[in-house]
Formats: sequence, C-alpha cells, structure tokens
Amino acid sequence: MRLGILGVLVALLAIFTAPAAQAEDGYDLWLRYRPLDTAAAASYREAIGPVVAGGASPTLKAAADELRRGLGGMLGAPSASSPPVVLGTAADPRIAALRLPLKAAGPEGYLIRTVTLDGRPATVIASDSEAGVLYGAFHFLRLVQTRQPVARLAVASAPKVKVRVLNHWDNLDRTVERGYAGQSIWDWHKLPDWKDGRYVDYARANASLGINGTVLNNVNSKADSLTAPYIAKAAALADVFRPYRIKVYLSARFSAPIEIGGLKTADPLDPAVRAFWKAKADEIYRAVPDFGGFLVKANSEGQPGPQDYGRSHADGANMLAEALAPHGGIVMWRAFVYSNEQPEDRIKQAYNEFVPLDGKFAANVIVQVKNGPLDFQPREPFHPLFGATPRTPLMLEVQITKEYLGFATHLAYLGPMWEETLQADTWRRGKGSTVAKVVEGELFGHELTGMAGVANIGTDRNWSGSHFDQANWYAFGRMAWDPQASARTVAEEWARMTFSNEQAFLEPAVGMMMGSREAVVNYMTPLGLTHLMATGHHYGPGPWVDDLERADWTPFYYHRADARAVGFDRTRTGSDAISQYAPRAAAALLADERDLLWFRRLPWNHRTASGRTLWDELVVRYSLGVDQVAAMRRTWASLAPYVDDERHAEVAAFLAIQQNEAQWWRDACIAYFQSRSQRPLPAGYAPPAHALEDYKALSFPYAPGHH
Amino acid sequence: MRLGILGVLVALLAIFTAPAAQAEDGYDLWLRYRPLDTAAAASYREAIGPVVAGGASPTLKAAADELRRGLGGMLGAPSASSPPVVLGTAADPRIAALRLPLKAAGPEGYLIRTVTLDGRPATVIASDSEAGVLYGAFHFLRLVQTRQPVARLAVASAPKVKVRVLNHWDNLDRTVERGYAGQSIWDWHKLPDWKDGRYVDYARANASLGINGTVLNNVNSKADSLTAPYIAKAAALADVFRPYRIKVYLSARFSAPIEIGGLKTADPLDPAVRAFWKAKADEIYRAVPDFGGFLVKANSEGQPGPQDYGRSHADGANMLAEALAPHGGIVMWRAFVYSNEQPEDRIKQAYNEFVPLDGKFAANVIVQVKNGPLDFQPREPFHPLFGATPRTPLMLEVQITKEYLGFATHLAYLGPMWEETLQADTWRRGKGSTVAKVVEGELFGHELTGMAGVANIGTDRNWSGSHFDQANWYAFGRMAWDPQASARTVAEEWARMTFSNEQAFLEPAVGMMMGSREAVVNYMTPLGLTHLMATGHHYGPGPWVDDLERADWTPFYYHRADARAVGFDRTRTGSDAISQYAPRAAAALLADERDLLWFRRLPWNHRTASGRTLWDELVVRYSLGVDQVAAMRRTWASLAPYVDDERHAEVAAFLAIQQNEAQWWRDACIAYFQSRSQRPLPAGYAPPAHALEDYKALSFPYAPGHH
Repeated sequence: MRLGILGVLVALLAIFTAPAAQAEDGYDLWLRYRPLDTAAAASYREAIGPVVAGGASPTLKAAADELRRGLGGMLGAPSASSPPVVLGTAADPRIAALRLPLKAAGPEGYLIRTVTLDGRPATVIASDSEAGVLYGAFHFLRLVQTRQPVARLAVASAPKVKVRVLNHWDNLDRTVERGYAGQSIWDWHKLPDWKDGRYVDYARANASLGINGTVLNNVNSKADSLTAPYIAKAAALADVFRPYRIKVYLSARFSAPIEIGGLKTADPLDPAVRAFWKAKADEIYRAVPDFGGFLVKANSEGQPGPQDYGRSHADGANMLAEALAPHGGIVMWRAFVYSNEQPEDRIKQAYNEFVPLDGKFAANVIVQVKNGPLDFQPREPFHPLFGATPRTPLMLEVQITKEYLGFATHLAYLGPMWEETLQADTWRRGKGSTVAKVVEGELFGHELTGMAGVANIGTDRNWSGSHFDQANWYAFGRMAWDPQASARTVAEEWARMTFSNEQAFLEPAVGMMMGSREAVVNYMTPLGLTHLMATGHHYGPGPWVDDLERADWTPFYYHRADARAVGFDRTRTGSDAISQYAPRAAAALLADERDLLWFRRLPWNHRTASGRTLWDELVVRYSLGVDQVAAMRRTWASLAPYVDDERHAEVAAFLAIQQNEAQWWRDACIAYFQSRSQRPLPAGYAPPAHALEDYKALSFPYAPGHH
Repeated sequence: MRLGILGVLVALLAIFTAPAAQAEDGYDLWLRYRPLDTAAAASYREAIGPVVAGGASPTLKAAADELRRGLGGMLGAPSASSPPVVLGTAADPRIAALRLPLKAAGPEGYLIRTVTLDGRPATVIASDSEAGVLYGAFHFLRLVQTRQPVARLAVASAPKVKVRVLNHWDNLDRTVERGYAGQSIWDWHKLPDWKDGRYVDYARANASLGINGTVLNNVNSKADSLTAPYIAKAAALADVFRPYRIKVYLSARFSAPIEIGGLKTADPLDPAVRAFWKAKADEIYRAVPDFGGFLVKANSEGQPGPQDYGRSHADGANMLAEALAPHGGIVMWRAFVYSNEQPEDRIKQAYNEFVPLDGKFAANVIVQVKNGPLDFQPREPFHPLFGATPRTPLMLEVQITKEYLGFATHLAYLGPMWEETLQADTWRRGKGSTVAKVVEGELFGHELTGMAGVANIGTDRNWSGSHFDQANWYAFGRMAWDPQASARTVAEEWARMTFSNEQAFLEPAVGMMMGSREAVVNYMTPLGLTHLMATGHHYGPGPWVDDLERADWTPFYYHRADARAVGFDRTRTGSDAISQYAPRAAAALLADERDLLWFRRLPWNHRTASGRTLWDELVVRYSLGVDQVAAMRRTWASLAPYVDDERHAEVAAFLAIQQNEAQWWRDACIAYFQSRSQRPLPAGYAPPAHALEDYKALSFPYAPGHH
C-alpha cells in the first residue's frame, strides 16, 4: 500500500516535471535554479536554513524573494534547524550589532559572512546599501549554483566601475538595430498601461550581474522618445526596474529642440536651447526621480550635433550636463565620430577630435569609447583614446550583440576579446597602465567611471537569439563589475549555471568557448584584416566592395589589396595612426602579428613568423578558422549526455550553420584575395567551392538587424 | 513515517508544480491538457485506457502522440484494464474488421465510436484517411477537455469546406502587415537549417481545428519568395507541417517573371511568361510535392496584375492555374480590387469586375472574397459577390487579426461577425441561399470550396498578442470546418479548453465574448458608419481625414457628414450599390438599422427606430459602446477566482486599455460629428473630454502592424 501511494505520487511527479523539463528553453538564463541531486541538496540544506529579510523595502524584498526562489528551487524547503540566511543593511539592528566593515565594502559592495547570531550560526549578507544586499543575494545563490562550499564564508565584493549599463539599440517601432534576437522587448505601444512580466525577469537577470542601468532607446534616436507620452512609458519601466536598482537612461537626439521644442536651432550656446533641455530634464525627473541621464551620438554617421552650429562636442555635452546636474544625472557622450569630408584615416578621427577637448567637459560628463578605433570588428587594437585624456573620464563601450561576429548563429564567446582590450597596456603612466585601469578611474583618479554593453537582448524566448549568446550578456555584466575578471573564470561560472557542473562537461565546453572568438577572427579577418563584411546588413563576406557613397564604408578602404601588396599602412610612412599610441604601446602593437595588416601594408611574399609567405599564411589562417568550427561541432556533439535535448539540438544546428558560413567566408575571401594576388594556394589547401563571381552575386535583402 | 514520505513528496510536488503554473502564459493555447480534478480524472480513466495506434506513419504517430500527451496530461497514466483508444484507417485490419462506414464519412471526415474489439469495449477513432484520424484524435481530446461523456460514443464529423487556410501577411523581414502579436514566426533567415520547435506547435494547433493549409507570405508579396533559397525554406516548413496534414501555399507576385525571371513582361498571354510559371511550379513541386498552390493579390492597391497588360483577372488566374494543374495545385485569386482612377463607388468595383468573368476561370481557380465589400470593418453587409457567380467557386476571406477592431488589446470575439456573414441570405436561389451555402459549394454545386483567415499569429508567447485573440484563431478553424457552427457554441468550447469548465465562469465569460464585437461596433462605427479610423496604421479614430492621395482611403469619403446629413447614399438615388444584391436581400439590408448609414445618407434629424433623432441615436450608441466595455471589465474582475493570476491580470490590463480607447473613439467621433451637425448632446450624455483639435493633433508614428 505504501508503495502504491509512492507509485501514484511518483507518477504525479513525472507529470508535473514534464512542464518543468519543457521550460529548458533558455528563458531562465543563468538563473535556472533546477533541483540539485539528492546528496548535494541534503548537504547544502544542512548549511542553509530559512531566509530572513532585514526589512520590507522593495529591494530587500526582491533580494529575499530571489533567495527563496533560488534556494527553494535548488534545495527544496529549508530546515528550520539549519543556519538562517540573514540579509540587510546597517539599518537593521541585527546587522548593525555585528559591526561589520560595511562602509569599507563600498556603496554597492557587500559582505557575505558566516557569523554567530543569537548564539547560533548564520550566514549574513550585508551591505551599506540595499543594492549591495541584492547583489550579495545573487552572489550567494551563485555559490550554490556553481557548487561552492558555503559553510565558512568570508566574501567581500564591490564593483570597480560605477556606471554599468546596457545600451539598447532599440527603435520605437520595436525593430532593433543590429539585433538578432527578435523584436525589442520594450512594447512601447502598450506601455505604460501594460507592463509585460518579462520586464521583471530582465531586471532580475541584470541585477544578478550587478548591471545598474539601461539605456532604453537606440543611439540613432528619435526625438519622440523625449515627448511626454514616451517619458510616461519610460517611467513605467523605471518603476519595474527600481527595486532591482537599475536606472533608466535615454538616448537624446541633439536636434530635439527643433523637432519637438518648436525652436529654430539646437545650438548648444543658444539660451532657448539651453532652456529647452533644462525644462526637459526637469520634466523627466518629475516622472523618473532616479533617471540616470542621457547617452548621445552626435555628429556621427549623419546624426545631428553641436558641430552643426560650429560648436564642439564639449559644448554639446556640457549643455546637457548642466540640465541634468541639479538632479544628479550624467551625460554619456560617444566618441564614435568620423567624417567622410576629411581625408584623414577614419580610425584616427575620434582621437584627433577628443584629445584637444581633454579637460573641457563638465564633471558629470563621461566620454564613451568603443574598445577599438574602428567599429566592433572581430579584432581591433585597443582604442588610442584610452589613456590619452587624463582630465576626462572615459567609459568603455563593447558590443554584446554580434553584428560583426556572425549574428546569433555563430558561437563566439566575447569574454576573451574584452579581456584583450582591458588588459592592453596603454603605457600612458608607465608599464601596467592598462585600459582596465583607465576604465576603473584608477589611472587618472576619476570618480565617474563606466562600462557600456550594446545589448543582444530581444523577444526571442532565450532572450539573446542563441543559448551561447547569453554568455556574452553574462560576461559583460561580470566584467563591468570587475574589469580584471578572467574571461575563462567567467565562462566557467556561466557554463556551470547554464548547463552543468560536471567536470566532464565543463572542461570541453569552456575550452570551446575560450577559442571561439579566435576562430571567428581566423575565418573572417585574420592577420589584422578588418571590415571585410557585406554592406548594410553585414551578413557574410564582401571584401570586393569598393564603390559605396562613402569610401570609409567599403572593405576596400581597409585592405587596399592589389597584385603586389595588402593592408593599410598606418606607420609613419602611411597615415601614422600608430603615433596615437604611447611609444611602448605602439611598439607592442607593431610587433603583434595579430594586428599585422591593420597597421602595415605588406607584399604578398612578406615572410610571416611561421616562415610562410603572407599569402600562404592568410590561406592557412582562413582554413584554420573553418577547422576550428568543425572541432567545436565535434566537441558539442560529445557533450550531449550533459545537456537537455532541446538546447543541445539548437546549439548543434547553429554550429552547423556556423560551419557553412565559416566555409563561405573562407572561400569567398580567398577567391577575392587570390584575384588580387594571382598566387596559387599552398599545397593541400582546397580551392574555393565556387567562383568569385558567384560569391559576389549573393544578395540578402532581408538579413536581420539592418534598420 | 508514511505521512513523512507523503509530506516530502507533497513538498516536492509543490516545487514541481511551480514551473507548471508559470507555464500558464498562453503558449499552450487551447491544448493545455492540465490535470483534471481527482474525481473527474478517475471517472475518465475508467472509460479511457491506453492509446493503440494503427500504424506508424508520421500522421498516425502524430495523432497517437497527441492523444498520449493530452490524456496523460489530463488523466495521468492509463489503466491497462480500461477500454483502449484505437485509432487508424481501413488499412489497419482491426479497423477494417469493424466495417465502419468510413467512405461515407468523407475524405477528411472521421468516426469516433464505442465498439467491441476482441470481445472487449474500446473507443475507435477511424477514418478513410490519416488526416481524418488526426482530426478525430483532437475531437476525442476535446471531449475530455470540455468534460463531455465518452462512454458511449457515436460521433461522425466531416469538413464542409475543402480548403481551410490561414493567410499570413508575413513579410520576409519578419514584420507582419497588420500583425499585433510580435514578429512573424517564420525565421526565414535561419531556415532551412534551423527549424524552430514552435513550427510543430503551430501545426498541432491548426490540425486541432482542421485547418489544412497555410499561405506563408504576405499577399503584398515579394518575388524573392519564389527564388530557390526561399523555396528551400518553404520546403523545410512543409516538411514540419506534413504529418499534421497542413499544406504550404505561397503568395505569388504577378510580376515575378520580370523581377526574378529576367523577362521584359509579365503578360499572362506571353509564351515566355507562361513558360516561366510552368517551370517555377515544377521547381516548387520538386521541393514540396504536396504544395498547395498560389494566392494572388493582383491589380489591387498598387500590386501588379494582368490588367497592366490589358488582360483580365481570369487571364491571369488561368495562366497560373495551368502551371499548377499537373501537380494538383490551386489558385486562390483575390477579388479585393478597386481603383481610384474610376469614379465608381469603391465598394461596387469588385462585383463589377468579377461578375462578368463568371464562368471564365479554370477549374482549379477559386476566387477569394472578403466577408464585406469594403475591408474588414467592424460591421459590413455581406459581400454582394456571394451568390452572384454561379459558375465560379468563391471562398470566404475573413480577418482574424483585428486591424480594424482594436488590435491586440481590445477584447472582440469575431465569431458573431463571421456567423452574421455566413448566415446572411443572398436570396440568389430563393430563401435560405446563405453565404454559408455558397461557401460550402452547395448552392451552385462546386467541388472546390474554401475559407481563408488572415492570421493573427506572431512570436508573442501567447501567439496572438492577447489571450482572448486566441479565440478568434480557434473560431476561424471551427467555422471553416463547419460554416454552420454556432459562434456561441464555439466560444464556450474555447473558453472551457482555455480557461475553465466551471459554469460560474462559462456563462459570464461567454456572454462577454458574444457581446464584445457589438461593443466595438458601437464605440467605433455605429449605425452603419464605417472606415473612420486613423490613416495608415489604423490606430484610433480619424473621421476628420479628408485629404489623402486617394479619396477612397479617407474616412470622409464614407460618411460625407455636413451640417445637414451624414452617410453614403447607395440607393438608386446614389451609387445604387444596393442593386448588386438580390431584391429580397437588398430589402433586408435596407431594413436593418445596423447598416443604416452604409446605404443611406440621412439628415441629422432623421427619426430612428428608437424614436430618437439620428444625431441623438449616434451619441447614445457611441456611449453605449463605452458602457459595454466597462461592463466587460466588471465581468472579468468577477471571474478572478476561475483564472490563473497571470492571464487574469493581462486580460484585465488590456480591458482597461480598451476602455480608455473606447472612450477616446467615442469622444473624438462625437466631437467631430458635432462639429458638422452643430447639435447639442442629448441630456445626460457627457461632452467629449477634450477639444476636437486635441484629438486631431494626436500622432502615433510607431503604431504596430503598419508595414
């Protein structure tokens, strides 16, 4: 009889677990909280008792709810006899009585400690701020998710960067520029009346990483987003995000005073324009008291800006800063500017524009600089502005969405790319003057610091368009919290939480992730080649394109291949872009073959480090990239025992697409460059599958992300 | 101890049911299969034993899998001692031995009978075709889902219409024209390599209703969809749909021979053009052996067509029909044509164009006619073509997506609207010559019959943009199967499967649904007013618009309100559109006050049936519409005990939006018409909340669905 009841209940369990298994569709991201195996759960239940919240504020409630949800999911109901998890700030007398060094942990930092409370052991998650408590709660969950010991904890963590924001290139019609994960998750049309439940999960995911801000709309912005109806919509989102300590920011269109203000000018020195922005800032803060500020793309790729009126970027930024300052808001002013009208090498222009403005920006302005001087290519040398503006805080902008690295279907973990930039040495204050130290504010002593990631988030069920692209969102958040974080450590952490804690899974999976971006570099743009993609949508190769309205939008501008040589001479004999770096940094860059053709124009018979000619080496690298993807497919196939069928099949299908497209990139680029070099392929390397003209004839008018 | 185990298991159950509850997000549509309460489940388990499939074909497997999934979900594991559910065709000897009248049930029909098999009771689901078995399986599940008895069954059902298709107005860039439920579910960019699991669920949902075809792309089509890469993508979808007996169709762009065929003309009498289409059809059938055929919008709203070459619609349709005929494909040729270049009343033009062509179409052509002569307005009289082409089969096109009935947020169940059209009497062969009989082919003895529904499906988690809009997809399928179906019966069936079988829920919920469309008519376009919506996106009211590039796109064209009168005279003294109907039908339409201003231009002081003046009646009706929505909100609020929190909250939020927008429609229309009539509001009726100019100033550049 007892077995009978058991049997029925087990059968019922089987029914109820079916939907739970179905839910392995990626929606839960790295916050899956699936039940641990019995032994592990029992062990953790001895160390982790009930959650005790130290207050009823929305943020403390969010932290406690998340702990209960996560621990309940992983461990089941807690035992009242196990050490409680107590969370709170110093406002809670229980926490205060512990006399923990909360101030020292920093304004958003936290401590997690095993302590004695009321004569019994307890785990305390404490912070000077409610935000810190929230972050600490996610940290504690992460310990269980990644199977770390929790019995004797003495954790302290604090963000090294102040502004950790996503940049959504989301348009008001729900298209997403360079988005490969469906529509914008912002349902502007139904806001503010309908707040989709997904907004809360978005906030949870970001808070779990310490992301504390989000720019809702595209940097190529519409003035409409600053009108009253859209301010109300943004305010509704801000209300949802507030408990999770995520501030809302808006991209501001510089010409808004004309478009929605009824003015004839947007001249930043015009008093009426200044009054417009002041009133607009006041209006926004009435609706969103903790509004973060403006992100601005000005005088760049056709966007309006202060230069339309003969004013400088500093004039423009400072005007907005003045409007925001009384409310505590900031201006993030993008340095991504270049002009076709001047003959200067495109990649030199941002430096030339901004270095002379150093020291001229208001205190609440931070200049947002891409990782490299071109535009989010698979590999670029670090941006020469880093380290070159001692009196101007710079924030790093990276692109999480993979505009240039294979959209959603290519598996490319970007942690190593960002690590490469962050660990690059600018040498501006001697050895060790890394980009990370610039970003952290340490190199020049700036208080205002930041990192921005162009989001890869959309309405796709798995948020990011592919399961592995979730890792890039994750890595951005973790590296914005700590720019010194190891890309490998972050990858393993993510893989544990997202897929499996089994070592037999982790070693191959993390290895595959760590090598994946270099594979893309190889099959797309090896040896310092860059910007070879097709025009507009950027889907697939287009190295032959040489006749667009702007020369610096063509691939040919960047590689200049002819019968004799290939590459862009940026040494003293060429554009001398190399001189924008400190001498020791320049020397290191010139010595690095990974940037070879970025800085130098070389004959096809140039001898590379491998001993092969440049031409042969190019073919070898392109081919290696394809082989690397093939190896990734084999690795993933071998991991089937550790991954649910649904996610495994999708990743496998995407890897198959990636292999096809890697081959296409390799073949099309070799066919094209061979048409220039007129050289034979090295022995053992297959010729392209099709003729060059066939690759040129391909057309993809409906490729995604091109809006 | 036993209780201890029980307790633990119950706790585990609680944990596992949490994700299951979370899954009440609408994704499962009416195929929810949630566990029945214990008593009901036990009772059904006595009558329903294991599922026994009569064959291993993909369709029989799909039917058996669905039964196991559905019965397993609702009832748990079956008892081996209960009567089995045996399904199959006459090809199965067990079925054949029963000598059931399967041929008589029709090619897609089925029987569900309680029989004696091997000396034991059994339920048999049998059909002459595998498709019929599949439909029967869903019918049997529906019996359990709606809590009908299943012990002594003698069910026979067969579709009364042959071609039951969805029309997706989905573009290749994944925008959806008049779509309010996210992006197109067709991920063209990743097809054919990646087949989203959602495609299977789409097929299941359609098969459950007997829908047997889908037109993948927008009638405003691109020739690209007929190129080799897109044929391969469509073939991948066809492969997924085939087990569910859903044929793929494509919208064909008439000028494709020029755009992708390298020809200088698309003249349907040109031999090269004919050869192009023949080769194209052959190419498609090589990839999709059961391809359904083409849907064509020609010489309509700027689309190319045979009239560009001085040829008729019949010439164009027959050319395509000739190319498809050897493969068994059909042409669905839309009658939605009108031209600004002729002064004729727009709503008369389709009739004038197509009646003279009666008898000139090839045997595999069917003309697709909208329910009314204008364009899917909240109410229109039935289209006069129905009954007017004895020698030409007509299929009915209805719009499931609510372009003109409040997008996704307004609750408007369309069953009553379609029932109104289907039950309308054309009087073409005497009394009872209903539109339904034309559509069923019965009136004139046509074999080729069809119904098309413009889909409201997108990537939104709940498929249709709102939970209640799922009912319109459902009702379309059920009414395409049986055009005589009662809208109320269908609504109740859907409400049972989607929400609850409790009578206390069903009566108010179904009542609310049944009245909902009339509420929309009242607050948008009462008394035969029509086409009053804003331009382009059609979001909100715009009765004042009178200056578009085409007069017949303006609201003013339709209402012609001035100080004296309002309405469009379509009697003999006006455009005489009424004469396109049979005399008895015309008399009925003229006598129906619901179509008053559709057919007649009347002075504001015209006395209506209520005894009120036309002006007063208009205000009363507009106000009533708002009151009706307020009542729907109250009803829904009272149903909270029967609905999960998540869906209840979303419906409630949408009803709040609907009430606001109903008020906006009422106020803006009254403000505008009052500016014409110059009459006071009847006593007790509130003036509009804002001035007319305020309503006119509203602008919605990013409203959805306008592509």
